[in-house]
Parts: sequence; structure tokens; C-alpha cells
Amino acid sequence: MEFTVGQIAEVLHGTVEGDAAQPINRLAKIEEAQAGALSFLANLKYEAHLYTTGASAVIVSRTLELRHPVSTALIRVDDPYSSFTTLLEFYQQATRTGRRGVEEPSFLGANSSIGGNHYRGAFSYVGENCEIGDDVVIFPHVFIGDRCKIGSGTILYAGAKIYAETVIGERCTIHAGAVVGSDGFGFAPQPDGSYRTIPQIGNVVLQDNVSIGANATIDCATMGSTIIREGAKIDNLVQIAHNVEIGRHTVVASQSGISGSTKVGDFCVLAGQVGLAGHLTLANRTTVTAQSGVGKSIKEEGVFLQGAPAFNLRDSLRAQAVFRHLPELERRITDLERRTNPTEKP
Amino acid sequence: MEFTVGQIAEVLHGTVEGDAAQPINRLAKIEEAQAGALSFLANLKYEAHLYTTGASAVIVSRTLELRHPVSTALIRVDDPYSSFTTLLEFYQQATRTGRRGVEEPSFLGANSSIGGNHYRGAFSYVGENCEIGDDVVIFPHVFIGDRCKIGSGTILYAGAKIYAETVIGERCTIHAGAVVGSDGFGFAPQPDGSYRTIPQIGNVVLQDNVSIGANATIDCATMGSTIIREGAKIDNLVQIAHNVEIGRHTVVASQSGISGSTKVGDFCVLAGQVGLAGHLTLANRTTVTAQSGVGKSIKEEGVFLQGAPAFNLRDSLRAQAVFRHLPELERRITDLERRTNPTEKP
Amino acid sequence: MEFTVGQIAEVLHGTVEGDAAQPINRLAKIEEAQAGALSFLANLKYEAHLYTTGASAVIVSRTLELRHPVSTALIRVDDPYSSFTTLLEFYQQATRTGRRGVEEPSFLGANSSIGGNHYRGAFSYVGENCEIGDDVVIFPHVFIGDRCKIGSGTILYAGAKIYAETVIGERCTIHAGAVVGSDGFGFAPQPDGSYRTIPQIGNVVLQDNVSIGANATIDCATMGSTIIREGAKIDNLVQIAHNVEIGRHTVVASQSGISGSTKVGDFCVLAGQVGLAGHLTLANRTTVTAQSGVGKSIKEEGVFLQGAPAFNLRDSLRAQAVFRHLPELERRITDLERRTNPTEKP
Repeated sequence: MEFTVGQIAEVLHGTVEGDAAQPINRLAKIEEAQAGALSFLANLKYEAHLYTTGASAVIVSRTLELRHPVSTALIRVDDPYSSFTTLLEFYQQATRTGRRGVEEPSFLGANSSIGGNHYRGAFSYVGENCEIGDDVVIFPHVFIGDRCKIGSGTILYAGAKIYAETVIGERCTIHAGAVVGSDGFGFAPQPDGSYRTIPQIGNVVLQDNVSIGANATIDCATMGSTIIREGAKIDNLVQIAHNVEIGRHTVVASQSGISGSTKVGDFCVLAGQVGLAGHLTLANRTTVTAQSGVGKSIKEEGVFLQGAPAFNLRDSLRAQAVFRHLPELERRITDLERRTNPTEKP
Repeated sequence: MEFTVGQIAEVLHGTVEGDAAQPINRLAKIEEAQAGALSFLANLKYEAHLYTTGASAVIVSRTLELRHPVSTALIRVDDPYSSFTTLLEFYQQATRTGRRGVEEPSFLGANSSIGGNHYRGAFSYVGENCEIGDDVVIFPHVFIGDRCKIGSGTILYAGAKIYAETVIGERCTIHAGAVVGSDGFGFAPQPDGSYRTIPQIGNVVLQDNVSIGANATIDCATMGSTIIREGAKIDNLVQIAHNVEIGRHTVVASQSGISGSTKVGDFCVLAGQVGLAGHLTLANRTTVTAQSGVGKSIKEEGVFLQGAPAFNLRDSLRAQAVFRHLPELERRITDLERRTNPTEKP
Repeated sequence: MEFTVGQIAEVLHGTVEGDAAQPINRLAKIEEAQAGALSFLANLKYEAHLYTTGASAVIVSRTLELRHPVSTALIRVDDPYSSFTTLLEFYQQATRTGRRGVEEPSFLGANSSIGGNHYRGAFSYVGENCEIGDDVVIFPHVFIGDRCKIGSGTILYAGAKIYAETVIGERCTIHAGAVVGSDGFGFAPQPDGSYRTIPQIGNVVLQDNVSIGANATIDCATMGSTIIREGAKIDNLVQIAHNVEIGRHTVVASQSGISGSTKVGDFCVLAGQVGLAGHLTLANRTTVTAQSGVGKSIKEEGVFLQGAPAFNLRDSLRAQAVFRHLPELERRITDLERRTNPTEKP
């Protein structure tokens, strides 16, 4: 793909300073860009790069005042970051998920329907009685079980595995190898110490604009539904157990695990490698720092938690700071004991 | 699927109070159930729901004495929980794993045999010289390498990957994306700081009634076998390294990792995100709480461990309780120093 | 496969003591070996097994002096461990990855080329415009997106998923279910609390001799490349985020997670379940112990880190030792307060 600086400026409703005829064939960071590349400057902290960049053109704010001469063309827009993101979206759509049509062999079960303008890659499998919307992209090796519903504009990357009866909303992204709808980990202990498997007959519901990371796992509910609400973003290798609910626009970073029946509120942030115990409720806007373990429900909104077990961030940071000096603390206590009780051998 | 209340009661050897002709088409929790649903009441803590439920029928104990009138039909049985689980099992079997026969294209290598009444989904792959029992369910995209043995009644969900020479017992469940038999992480350091890969030529043995979670990974032994014994339950995203042994009816929750050559006893419980160092032995009935890290062998049976590094649960809880007040403790020490040594500036 | 003791000795440039005509059909540990097995003795700690082993032959050092009679044949070589590893390599190559040719159905996209002597398993998928070298082994269910480059001698196990534009060097090993090139977890918060997805248009570069474990995930760069340098070894279920760089011959053990834009030096060792925050730099030869969390850059080479948050190993071990006695420490402080201030009620 190759466009001119002028063509790109037109798409972005921007104005060009410099050579509008120059060809652009890729996007790059301003400090790494070379001839042919288009970059952007949004944060003025990086302004110095503007005067040394090798980029053929840089997207900048209409209000930017140059402090030095530049050798690159400029495309002036209202919001450089947003404009650049728009270009990234075009680029990714064109290069990665732009395919349409059906590659053979692929499998489409009885009574399943798919909307227009879709892609089904070779070796993809769609079970029976599925309803799949328009513009859906199904990469090779995707498995979709029976009676699933998948909304328009959703992308399933290679080898995503969707168990039967899963419901997926519109414009969701399921990354490679993610598993949605596997059995919850439910076993009833028997008198002899062995376990009887409790069948898991519920399902998983992903609402609109949900993103699921590569090799993440989301278990179905024992009965009812495990629910990931609108706009929630789940990172790679995250585990979400049966009957969990994740609130709207909540972000769960990589390798975190959420135990059964826990309800996470809206607009929460769980950093990487966090663990939540089962049957908890986390209020809206709760933030949990990396590697923390939460064992209690959080009722107040907007709390920051840290530690394993987690408590409020400020107190946790203070306790951690003292922890590092524990050997010194112990020595001070021993000194005090010697001084206050000189007749006793410590 | 639709049955009458009377038909279900007959299967469960129960007796009906109310309208036995009502149709039942799904199972639900008593507090969420609506017309057409069958529910159960096992724990009397939830008895209040019995008088308000929308379920068409509820399975209850023969000995339950009603305290209010009910609008739902009752099916009286000896053990409501067990009866309901039986229905769940029927339901899951019928809806999810009930398929039989071979979907094409699928791949069956030379000299491999499969018993009767099996399912091989489209795009499933069975290598050469495999021996597979009766009633085995092989979902689409399952990979089974050469010279594997798989016992009767085992289910392999979509995209499970079984390396060559793996031995799997009867009635095992391998969830989607699980990898069994990948190479152990063994590298011999060389004088220049690089590593030479130590080939891993052992295998994995799963005994009967073992369950492996979605996207879990179980490495083969360097030589000999990595062994998961009868009835052990391994959750999603668990890592089991080379030459590990997991005892009978031991439960390993999600995202736990067990390092090379460690032997976990029978009837143990590892909660989520636990780590075990290598070359350890854990006695039977050891319990490790979530996010703990065990660095030493446990010789005594029945111990509860917590923390990273883990020690016994009671002491760990006490130390954690004090940890939260470390800043206060430090202040108390500083106060003591001031009071006992007033001439020095602290 | 069956060879004689003499044939194996010839391959290893060794000399035989005992019956060179005996058949060998497998490799085993010296303490577990039985008739037909070949074993080795490298560490003299295990010498006692030499006099009791059931192995048909044992590889030993040319300089070993026997202290008792042996019933097994000996193959004397310069370096028994290295010789045995060579045999393991032959064995693994022959049994696991020795297949060549193309199994059908498999998919090869337009304008993609593959070198000689390769294997493409059934249901494997290679996209368009890929360049793949000689001797490459592509197991069933492998997905390779468009415009990928893969060097000679690389092995991709079942169901490995390689996103478009990934570059993989020579002699790499990608284990089953690993995902290379998934989108980085980048979302720009919007005024209403929702997130806009930041397209990730970079790629992943694996240099030569890199190993990626089963179900590990490696995200592509937002722009530019996520880079795993020569000889690095990445274990199962590891998460490597966008724009991370891993140095040469660095080892990352299972379930560790490395956040976005962090650069790990050469010859580093990250043990299991470690977490690194984003935008850090770790100097060469940094070692991080299991379950630690690193939140700061490390500038000095050769440092050992422990804890969450991590600090230097020696201090961390000391602090942990005191942590276990925190309840006792608190009692000692209370005692001091009582003794030094007897009139106040404590």
C-alpha cells in the first residue's frame, strides 16, 4: 500500500506543510521513522524528535509553533493522536483482517446461518444451529460449537475455541487460542475422598465490544451465565471461572485469575497476575495492582488495592517499606531489651 | 428436549406432588427458575425460595415438611442434590458430547484403531499406531500424536493437543486447548553462556478419571513418565513440568505451576496461582492456599500451607495480620528508643 | 528402532567393554534401566547404580576406574553426558519430528514458498506471501499468517499460531498452542470511561535458536517489533507483552509475565511466575527468583532479585526470615512498653 502525504491529509481533514506529493508506505514511531514513513507528535515531551526525524511526514497539532526548521512534511490536524489511531485502524483492517469469502475445506453445521461479507478460513468449524452476524471474520482453526450466537463485526483469530451455546456480541475480538465456555472447575467430594464431576450446563455471554486475549480461558456457568459486559478488555492467559461477572469497560491484565461466582464492577482495573477469591463483589472503579490477591469484597467505589492479601494501596506501600527493614527493626528491639533490662541475659 | 415432570420423577425413582404432566425443558437455580424449568432444594438455607420460585417443578427431600403452600410441583427423592446432578449429567451428555460418527475431513494415521460408538470431529488428527478405546469423543481440531493410547469413555475437547506416546486412561476429560506431552524445559548451560537443549524423550501418563483444564500444559518426562494419577483434577492454565507426579484425587486449581520432578501426594488441594519448586515431595492431604509458593518438601500429612514462601496456615495468618501494622510497630519502637534514651537525639 | 551396543559406540567414537553385539532398543535412567536399555553415568554421585543396573549397556567416562565387577556392557567416551544427549537428540528427531512430506488436506496460500525436506501436517495453514526455509517441520493445525518468514530447521508443533508478518529465525522450536504475534493490550481511555482499541501494527521477531513453550503468548509491537533474541528460551504459559525485548540466551520459566516495552538483558534468568512491570530495563545476567515482582529497572549486571516487590536476594531472605516471627516481635515490643512505662495501661 502506498499513498501520498496529500491523500492522507485529505482523509484526516488536515492541511499539509511541505511536499504533499511524497509517497508514504508505512507508519512508525517518530524516533525510529525513516524515509517513506509517516509518524505523529502528540506529546510535546517528544518535540525534539520533530527536528531530527527521518520520517517523510509527521502529523502534528494545528496549534503547534515550530521552534526550529523541519526537514519533514507536516500534516496539521486537531488531534494528532486520534488521527494517527484512525490510520492505524485502517492499516490493521487492511492487512490483517481484510479477507472475505470462504476458504476450503471448512465446516458449517446444519441449520447455521452467517451474515454477509464474512470470512471463514480453511479448517474453521461452525457447529449446528448457530446464528452469526454480518462482517464476521473467522480465522482458520476456529471452533464454534452448536447453538452459538455471534454478533456482527466480531473477529475470531486462529484457533479460538467457542463451546456450545456461547453468546458473543457485536464487534468483539477473540484472540488466538482463547477458550470460551469450558467447564467450570466443579467437583463434589465423595466419602472416599474422590470427586464427582458437577456437570456445567450454563454458558458464557460476551456483550458488545469485548476483547479476549490469546489463550485466555473463560468457563461457562454451572447454571445460568458467566457474563463479560460491554466493552470489557481481557488480556492474554487470564482465567475467568464459572459464574463470574465482569463489569462494563473493566480491564483485566494478563495472567490474572478470577475465581468462581465473583462479580467485578464497572470501570475496574485489575493489573497483571492478580488473583480474586471466589464469591466476592468488587465495587465499580476498583483498581488492583499487579500480583495482588483479593480475599474480601470491596463495597466502596474507587478503592486502590495492593498486596497479597490486598489492602488499600497507601497502607500497603508503607507496610512494604518497613518490611524491607525488618532485620534492622529486630536489632533495634534487641537493643532496647538489653538497655532496659541490663541484668537479664538477652 | 422436553420431558414431563412425571417422566423425570420416574428416572429418579421419585414421587410427584402436583401436576405430573407439566412439561420441563431446562434446569435452573431455584431463585432464577421460571415456567418450564426444573430446580432443586438441597440446602434448607434456601427453603424460602421454594415458596416463591417460578420453577414448574422442584426436586426436594422425601422428608421435607412444607411450612407454606407451594405453587410448583414437587419431586420427592432421597438425595435431591445427587438426583439433580444426575440430571445435569444427562443434560450435558445429550447436548454437548452426544455426537457420534466421523465428520470429514478428518485424519486417521496408519495402524491406528478406535473402538465403537466414537466421535471424530472434522479436522481432528490421529497419528499412527494409536490405540483408542470405545465411546471416545474427539472434537474438531484435536491433535493426537503417534503411538498414543487413550482409554474408553475419554473426551477430548476442541483443539486439545496430545504429543506422541502419551497414555490416557478411561473416562478422562481433556478440555479445549490443553497440551499434554510438550517438551520439558531442560537446557544444559554451555561454557559460552548459551544453552544446549536436552531432548525430552519420556511421556505423560494420565490414569483413569483425570480431568485437565482448558489451555493447561503438561510436559513429558525427560526420561520415564510425568504421571497424573487416578481421579486427579487439573484446572485451566495450570503448568505441570517434566517428571512431576500428581497423586490420586488431588485437585490443582487454575494457574498453579508445579516445577520439575516434584511429587504431590494423594488427596492434596492446591488453590489458584500456587507455585511449587522443583524436586519436592508433598505428603498426602496437603493443602496449599491461593498464591502461595512452596519451597520445601512437606513430610507430615494433612498440613495447611500459606504464603510465599509458604509455612503453616495459622502462623502465616498471624504474621500477615502484624504485617499490616508494620508502620505502627516501627513508630512504637522509635517511641521506646526516645523514652529509654532521652539524651540521644533519635 | 534397534541397534547393537557396538553400533552405538561407533557413532559416539567410544570403545566397548563387554558384549558389543547386545541389542539396544531404548534409553533410560541408570536406576530404572532394564534389559535392552542404554544408560549413562556422568555424575560419580550415582556410581553405585553402575554395579546394580539392569541396563544392557552404560556410557561411562574413559577415565572411570571400576571398583566392583559390572554385569552391564560399558561404552567408554570422553564426555558421557554429552554423548548421551547426542543419542537423545537422534532419538527425539527420529521418533517425534522425523516426518517429511505433505499430508492432505493442508493449505498453502498464494505466493508462499517452502524449502526442501519439510513436513506440513494435515490441516496446517500457511497464508500468502510467506517465505519458509529448508527442513521446516509444521505439525497439524499450525497456523501461519500472511507475509511470515521462517528460517531453516524450525519446528512448529501442533496448533502453534503465528500471526501475520512474524519473523522466525533458524532452528527455533515453537511448542503446541503457543501464540506469536497477538495484539498488544493497548486501549486508550475515552472521556466516558470506555476504551478505544489502539491498533497494533508491529510484529514479533524471534531470532535463531529460540524456544517458545506450549500455550505461551507473545504480543506484537504497537509499532516496530517485539524481539526475542538468539538462543532465548521461553517456557510454557509465559506472557510477553508488546514491544518487549528479551536478550540473548535469556531463560524465562513458566507462567512468568513481562509487561509492555520492558527490555530484559542477555544471559538473564527469570524463574517461574515472575512478573516484570512495563518500561523497565534489566541488565545482563540479572536473576529473578520464583514469584517475584520487579517494579524498577536494574542497572548493575549480575544482580539476584527476590520478593514482590523484589529487592536483592540476601536482604530479601533476611526480611522474610523476620516476617515469620512478626507476632513474637510485636509481643516483645508490648513487653518493652509495659516495662518502660509501668504507670500507663498498655
